[in-house]
Amino acid sequence: MEKMMNDRMPIPSAQQCTASLQAINDALYVVGGKWRLPIIISLSEGKKRFNELHRAIEGVSAKVLSNELKALEINGFLRKTNPMDNPSVIEYELTGYSDTLQDIMNALSAWGAMHRQNLKNFF
Amino acid sequence: MEKMMNDRMPIPSAQQCTASLQAINDALYVVGGKWRLPIIISLSEGKKRFNELHRAIEGVSAKVLSNELKALEINGFLRKTNPMDNPSVIEYELTGYSDTLQDIMNALSAWGAMHRQNLKNFF
Repeated sequence: MEKMMNDRMPIPSAQQCTASLQAINDALYVVGGKWRLPIIISLSEGKKRFNELHRAIEGVSAKVLSNELKALEINGFLRKTNPMDNPSVIEYELTGYSDTLQDIMNALSAWGAMHRQNLKNFF
Repeated sequence: MEKMMNDRMPIPSAQQCTASLQAINDALYVVGGKWRLPIIISLSEGKKRFNELHRAIEGVSAKVLSNELKALEINGFLRKTNPMDNPSVIEYELTGYSDTLQDIMNALSAWGAMHRQNLKNFF
């Protein structure tokens, strides 16, 4: 009987590295950069208007935020909606596809917390 | 009775989002961007000289590669060594700390492969 898989995949062999690198590059191409994951995390709290997002994502310019929202929409992570009581307002909300990023978020978050703790212990 | 937890951590509550976002930002600050993870993956095959890395990492300029290697060295992911038989040559090799990125690599790789498959099915 097969051993229960744990949640890690095995470390890839040298031969698998090209495919693995390509897959990582694919992922970084779509969700890499400074703002995309923070935008998705912010929207995981609930729908937000542009200005709410702009306030929530510290340091992003309106132009860059606008471009990043477009890219995230094109890649299927979020959609624009209108509140029932005010159809002229645009809100951004996550699609189900953004849930597929959960493992990446968890891994980054765990690593970031560990790294910060290491730096604290070091200095 | 509570449903069996799967291997995902629960999606963070709104209150936890700031800490989680900070940790993700910490991680992205250190290993984000276009080249750092590809450099680490390339070195996971074994030590490499600068020119070998430059050939292996498609599209990176020598100047950017040099800067990225410095940043990765400062952050403890790699070190410079000299081959025994040629002490004038510099090689780059990963430290044990780079192994701590395995979960991030695995999550990105799995997601990238899934996303590529999705696009194939879509078009």
